[in-house]
Formats: sequence, structure tokens, C-alpha cells
Amino acid sequence: MRNVRVGAAQLGPIQRAESRASVVKRMLALLEEAARRGCTLVVYPELALTTFFPRWHVEERAEFDVWFETAMPGPETAALFQRAAALGVAISFGYAEKTPAGEHFNTSILTDRKGAIIGKYRKIHLPGHVEFDPARTHQHLEKRYFLPGDLGFPVFHAQDGLIGMCICNDRRWPETYRVMGLQGVEMVILGFNTPSVNSQKAAEGLEERMFHHRLSLQAGAYQNATWVVAVAKAGVEDGHHLMGGTLICDPEGHIVAELPGEDDGLLVHDCDLDATRFGKETIFDFKRHRRIEHYGRITAQVGVETPPQSA
Amino acid sequence: MRNVRVGAAQLGPIQRAESRASVVKRMLALLEEAARRGCTLVVYPELALTTFFPRWHVEERAEFDVWFETAMPGPETAALFQRAAALGVAISFGYAEKTPAGEHFNTSILTDRKGAIIGKYRKIHLPGHVEFDPARTHQHLEKRYFLPGDLGFPVFHAQDGLIGMCICNDRRWPETYRVMGLQGVEMVILGFNTPSVNSQKAAEGLEERMFHHRLSLQAGAYQNATWVVAVAKAGVEDGHHLMGGTLICDPEGHIVAELPGEDDGLLVHDCDLDATRFGKETIFDFKRHRRIEHYGRITAQVGVETPPQSA
Repeated sequence: MRNVRVGAAQLGPIQRAESRASVVKRMLALLEEAARRGCTLVVYPELALTTFFPRWHVEERAEFDVWFETAMPGPETAALFQRAAALGVAISFGYAEKTPAGEHFNTSILTDRKGAIIGKYRKIHLPGHVEFDPARTHQHLEKRYFLPGDLGFPVFHAQDGLIGMCICNDRRWPETYRVMGLQGVEMVILGFNTPSVNSQKAAEGLEERMFHHRLSLQAGAYQNATWVVAVAKAGVEDGHHLMGGTLICDPEGHIVAELPGEDDGLLVHDCDLDATRFGKETIFDFKRHRRIEHYGRITAQVGVETPPQSA
Repeated sequence: MRNVRVGAAQLGPIQRAESRASVVKRMLALLEEAARRGCTLVVYPELALTTFFPRWHVEERAEFDVWFETAMPGPETAALFQRAAALGVAISFGYAEKTPAGEHFNTSILTDRKGAIIGKYRKIHLPGHVEFDPARTHQHLEKRYFLPGDLGFPVFHAQDGLIGMCICNDRRWPETYRVMGLQGVEMVILGFNTPSVNSQKAAEGLEERMFHHRLSLQAGAYQNATWVVAVAKAGVEDGHHLMGGTLICDPEGHIVAELPGEDDGLLVHDCDLDATRFGKETIFDFKRHRRIEHYGRITAQVGVETPPQSA
């Protein structure tokens, strides 16, 4: 048994006017609780330091560099790393990253239990669009504000196991889990900011949104025999509702813990990484069962190519 | 609206002693019912003509060529094709195929509404093992009795839409659906013979088996915005229990129809192929969102390659 007691640290809404210092204080409160409850890893959501700003269309790029971090740890986040190190708790959270070269990414990091960053991931599946879209109920401009991640889906030795990261919309794509599964991932951690309204289908409804969220996580867990820890930023940010749904899936695909509500809150679960063994060694023993000679389209083509009519 | 009224024609158990003629008679009865109810397509299970023989270990290959078809249609199945053509109903079913070259495959075919075979698929993800395994509660020797399919996952123009096939264990693999999704598939049809007992985890139980079955189908449907029609051979064959679970998923991943029981039975549902458009044009618009430069492992490696310790 290789147990990881993980704390899924949901954040309630972060208003546009809220300062980084205030957010970090909220994150510290959850960290303290997690330490008291024996967690060795705390996972916070995507864009944990700010409101979900891609909902706003801004003409001038520079106007929203205010949401981006140029250093990690930075002036406002250093306290979080220091306290995590003092408590011996590893942390993972998402933030908007601006590189020295001026590139913008939707990023997450993972530390060891001494507060050192041991892993970084940059969101690959950016949803939404680049230009203002009047047909939508609200804007979702991630393709405007971020570049697609350039680090692949790396898996890291951490917590005496193998941990990988993805972010929000990545969780809907089976490729995400499979690329990590092929590196032996035992726990996928991810944060999300998911509007409770589908901007292109307002009638869809929250229940349906939550169904797709759970379905994607559960299938990714089962089909790769991995734990999945998904952490929401939830609630109403400046009038825009983000859904909750912070939860943990076991390697058989079952939701074993779920946090109700849309406020700051901590979901704690003991995850035995050895529980991934059965699936990885039987039905999803990739080396015995996968047939890559028939998967070529997955990496050879981006979009759909329908068969010729004569086929 | 492009409606396909599909009939998912579940078969109850086929005992070892039951003749092909008897099985075809049962299939014909379901075909007549389907025609009466207005179906344009009837889908039967995997290995629809015989018992699920891979549960038996036989030393001599030749001994079980009795289960294999060397022609399709063949002497016993011709009546099925003829009646389907007369009724104007397309059919799809699975069978054990022996080629002129002596190769053995777990195969399914799809006809048009005139009884002509327009599509063939050979099962790619063969579960189980090659040699007798005393550690199992029962044998599952598909890897002994069949070669892995050599036709890929083709998608066919049929029923005014795009239809693909897979078989049984293929449904647990996201690659299966994705390769078809990349060809614009609008309906995936499949049959299965799934033991209700996991031969390597007897305590797993039927409920858990059914959960994994549904989860895999639902995720494949949602993540590729396609209908999925899954048809069981069910019930107790010579003392071995196969689970039911004949069902239809819509392109949002919901189970919209499910057949109770483990006997011969027909599940009829109207499937609007245009209901696949929303998913294919928004969240799963592959050409806008997929990032194949990060999927390389999926086709470059078969098994797991864990990261180096220094990573």
C-alpha cells in the first residue's frame, strides 16, 4: 500500500476586485486544514490566483497582463510555498503564466513536500475562441489569451508514485489520460473553472454539464487505471456562475468522494496508489492489448476525414 | 433530421449443442419483429451464430474450426440475408471467420438494405490469453483462437450517414471510438459476449461489470459525439453466465434505451444522426481543438514507459 492522503482544495469565487494577497490567504487557510487532517498533497484549481478572466473580451493584450504571473513563486505566492514547506505538504495549483519571452500559458505546477517545484504543465486543450463572438451567451476567450501548452503531458515521480497534471477542458479528451497512462500515471490531478452555462447551448443546464464532467473523469480513471483528483473554482464570479464538482475517482472509475457546494472547502481522501495495479496488469495491460498499428489517425490527422463515398 | 430506426437484437444464450439453423431461426424472428416496427437497421451481437467458445481450452486447433464460417453468407446464413433484403432491412452481426488462407478472426459485417455486405470489421482488441491459465476462474482464450483484426476501424457510408463497427472488448478502449470519430462516425454499432464474472477477480460482481460497460460506451459516445448501439449475447451458456446490457447511447453520452433481461429481445430506438452535429461542431470540433503534436506516445509506444527517476 502506497497511500497518498490528498486534499482537493476547492476555491469559491474570486471576484475581479479581489487581491492576490486575499486569495493566497484563503489558500493558506485550506492548507492549514489539510495539514491538520494529515494530507501530504493539496490540489487547488485552475487559475487559482485570479478570477476566470477569459470571460472578458479586451482589445488590448497588455490590459490583462495584470492577471499573469512572471515568477513562481512570486511576491504574493511565496508565503504559500514557505508555509507548505514548513508543514511538509506538497501543493499543486494553476495560474496564468507569462514567460520571460512574453508567451502566455494556462499553467499548473506541482511541488515536493519541501516546497520545490518538481513539475510544470501548460494547458494543451484550450477551449473557446479567439475573437469576440456575439452568438454566445458569454465569451470564452482562452484561445485569445493563452498559447496551447508546449510541455506535453509529463508524469512526475512524486508522493512515492507517478503523478500527472492536466487542466479543465483537457479532462474531456481521452488523449490526455492516455498519454499519461502510457507513462504509468497513478494519479492525475487537475483544476477547472467551468461555466455552469454552455455559451453555445444555454438550455443545456447545470445537471448536464456535471454529467459530462463526471463521465470524462470516470472514463479517464477507469481506462488508465489511475486515480483522478478534480478541483473546482466554483460559484458566482462577477455575475458569472462556475459549477462545483470537486471530486475524486478511484482507478476503477468510481467517484469515491465529492465536495458539495461552491465555497472554499477541502475534500480529503486516502488514495492507495497500489489500487491502480489490478487494472494496469489485467484488462488495461497496454503492452499485451494495445494495437498501435490501427491507431495511426490519432496522431496523423487533426480533424475529421470522412471516407470516400465509394467506400 | 436523418433518422435511423435501429433495432438492437439481443440474443439469449446459445448452447454448445444448438445448431446454426436454430440460431438463424431466432435471428429471423427478431428480424421480422424489427421490420414490423419499422427498423431500417438490425444489430445482432458478437459471435451471433455460436456459443462463446473461447471459454474452452482445446489443444487441437482443428477441433474448433467447427465454430468458424468460411463463407458469408454461408449455407446456414443465406436465409437471413435473403429475408433482410426482402424486408429492406440492413443487418449487422458478428461471427467467427476463417479466411481462405486459414486465418481466424472475430468478425462482424454490415449490409445495406438490399442484403449486400458493405462493411467488414475484424476485432482488434482481443482480451484474454493464449495458453490455459489455471489461476483464472474460467478461461478466456480469444488470443488463442483469433488473430488481431487487420482492417483497422473503418467507417462506412450507410443509412444516409456514417457507421462504424467494433466488437466487445474494443468498447473499453478510447482509441476505438477516436479512430472512428476522426472519420466522422455518427453511429458505432457493436456486439458483445461479456462474462458476468471477471476471470481474474471473481469478487468483482455483475454490477461493477455493468458499470464499466456503460461507462466505456457513454464516454465513447460523448467524446466523439456519436450514437453507440451495443448488443449483448446474454444468459447462461453451458453453465457460463454472460451479462446483458443491450443499450443505446445518444451523442451526448446518455443511455436513452436499455433492454432488460437476458433473453432474445429487440430494443428499438430512433437515432437522429443530425444530433451528432452539435458536439462535433463545438466542444469536440477536432480540427480546432486537437493537438496531435502532444499525442505521440499513443501511436509510438505500445506499453508503459515510466519517466526516469531524475525527471
